[in-house]
Amino acid sequence: MEWLNALDDDAAARHAAGLRRELRPRGAAIDLAGNDYLGLSRHPEVLAAAAGALAEFGLGATGSRLVRGTTAVHEALETGLADLLGAESALVYSSGYLANLGAVRALVRDGTLVVSDAHNHASIVDGCRLACAGRAGRAGAATVVAPHADPAAVRDILAAHPGRPAVVVTESVFSVDGDLAPLAELHAVARAHGALLLVDDAHALGVLGPRGAGGVAAAGLAGEPDVVVTATLSKSLGAAGGVVAGPRQLHRLLVDTGRTFIYDTALPPAVAAGALAALRLLAGGDALRAELHARTARAVARLRAEGLEVSAPDGGVVSVAAPSPDEAFAWAAACRERGVAVGCFRPPSTPDGRARLRLTVGVGVPAEDFDHALDIIIKERP
Amino acid sequence: MEWLNALDDDAAARHAAGLRRELRPRGAAIDLAGNDYLGLSRHPEVLAAAAGALAEFGLGATGSRLVRGTTAVHEALETGLADLLGAESALVYSSGYLANLGAVRALVRDGTLVVSDAHNHASIVDGCRLACAGRAGRAGAATVVAPHADPAAVRDILAAHPGRPAVVVTESVFSVDGDLAPLAELHAVARAHGALLLVDDAHALGVLGPRGAGGVAAAGLAGEPDVVVTATLSKSLGAAGGVVAGPRQLHRLLVDTGRTFIYDTALPPAVAAGALAALRLLAGGDALRAELHARTARAVARLRAEGLEVSAPDGGVVSVAAPSPDEAFAWAAACRERGVAVGCFRPPSTPDGRARLRLTVGVGVPAEDFDHALDIIIKERP
Repeated sequence: MEWLNALDDDAAARHAAGLRRELRPRGAAIDLAGNDYLGLSRHPEVLAAAAGALAEFGLGATGSRLVRGTTAVHEALETGLADLLGAESALVYSSGYLANLGAVRALVRDGTLVVSDAHNHASIVDGCRLACAGRAGRAGAATVVAPHADPAAVRDILAAHPGRPAVVVTESVFSVDGDLAPLAELHAVARAHGALLLVDDAHALGVLGPRGAGGVAAAGLAGEPDVVVTATLSKSLGAAGGVVAGPRQLHRLLVDTGRTFIYDTALPPAVAAGALAALRLLAGGDALRAELHARTARAVARLRAEGLEVSAPDGGVVSVAAPSPDEAFAWAAACRERGVAVGCFRPPSTPDGRARLRLTVGVGVPAEDFDHALDIIIKERP
Repeated sequence: MEWLNALDDDAAARHAAGLRRELRPRGAAIDLAGNDYLGLSRHPEVLAAAAGALAEFGLGATGSRLVRGTTAVHEALETGLADLLGAESALVYSSGYLANLGAVRALVRDGTLVVSDAHNHASIVDGCRLACAGRAGRAGAATVVAPHADPAAVRDILAAHPGRPAVVVTESVFSVDGDLAPLAELHAVARAHGALLLVDDAHALGVLGPRGAGGVAAAGLAGEPDVVVTATLSKSLGAAGGVVAGPRQLHRLLVDTGRTFIYDTALPPAVAAGALAALRLLAGGDALRAELHARTARAVARLRAEGLEVSAPDGGVVSVAAPSPDEAFAWAAACRERGVAVGCFRPPSTPDGRARLRLTVGVGVPAEDFDHALDIIIKERP
């Protein structure tokens, strides 16, 4: 068929351009690729909570929360998340992707200007597209991409649209380079304009802030009425799902009108129960966080001592520059063959067009394995 | 803050218009609201498989499939889904919503005309929006909404755009009324134009077709090179997640470029393992399907004998007309107070602006409970 031939041609072109992605077995590699920062995905209390809910509720949620009804586990998880994040309310989604789609859409009204950081995650970008998309989105709403982590640029964009409703959207710890957005400055700029600040705290939850409450809390912005937080339950919490936290009026709006909440099967109760157990461990996990930050600092120092160009991470994401996309790919492959899993980020998945390895620091990895992994990464450098 | 006041005003307006939604505890009600058609969410083999994978892999997938690596469970699930659906390949997503977003986007090229059934699910509608959205979507791509289940209308829309690439998008069993789309006719119309047919088989998988392979298989379209199938793993399979099945070239495209696959944490291995166990039970579940269809037919006959206006269901979704949105709401509430959970669908969630109860027939509900639930529904009619 013609379309299949066209797809074959497209695939050949991507392949020639080095843009092919391969699904590979996870194997038993030392994990410097995943986001289980605190090692909670395998914590006995998390597994016990999930197993208990599996036996009590069955596997799937069997429907949306609104049609099928909500379980005590979902309610407790939302109460716990709101408490940790210092928000009036929290609403759990089946994924962080859907949480971001829902959150952006909810904050956009007719004519809203969305100011989105250039390094924002695909789910935020898609949220902006959906919220502002032609007939189906909000009339007159539009997205402007701001230079990365640049409050002055955001201020100028807002100032160019006086009186217009606006939302500033950013991650806290960015997923590729691991740097922390200047949240307090962004908030000040947003508030001066009367704009809202939406922060995806996915990579900071559990890693930064008091009780691991995340980057927003670390910046002193928890509970501010013009700040909305999203996060995943799939990184430090070791589970799956997403959350939108903010004022109770936002919760009401999301429940009444949020398509990615209303028309989606709820998170499985067992996953919610595991996330809730992880939430308690996370909040009490100062020792785990101290170990994570110490280990990250040691890794950065060691890689830099080898002359590698390494990002200045604020959380557990360490970015190591590679000379070229092809060399990044070969580097990651060589590590994998030696039993070390690392992320390999190449254009167009990198916001700046540069290739790098992404190392994530998880304290669930035994320290000697982690150090051995660094040996391999250094040894296999291009 | 001003925006919170505006949200309060909006909420009051929605409340006044009867558009408020409430999250309510599920409780111990007899379930005629969920989508666990074959009762597999609580099947011992499903629970054992999920518990085993929970112990083996931990709770969360700890990253995307591409970065963190894929597990044998995910691979086996995809092989099993492709086999059942008669497709060359299958790719699993963390939700059916994200599977639909990914599938629609993948089938839209520059200039593509998307012909979308008026009753299609929100996730398909959002997929069309994202795929065709201004700068960020495909240049010149556009969505036309076709009248519900009307192949002649689809033919006319396609004929008005000769030579233009096109995709016809429909559900198989529709989620609100439970009617089956005329899939063979839609496919003939699509093929005559050289268009693709994308079918969301969420409510037919496990319910219709040989081995419960779904509406596409029942229509004799399994494996056709111009047909793409999406489904959820959260209904008959009793789990969570979604799938896109089709030619291997599509799988390659989705892995290389599909944002909702690439940038999303994978389905938890335990959920995938449970879905895989359910898949085997589903394929061997002819007796369960026979019971489901017999029970559905009895329910329809009984409700009609009481003078109620009932849809002609092809699967396990039964729609019962209510005189008004308020009466639908009160009817569902009265049933709930008597221990029976039913869906209550009111405008604007209903495609035709009419209110109804939605009853789903699941064979996991004991027959005597199911009959008792019908008693209550009839007794509490407005």
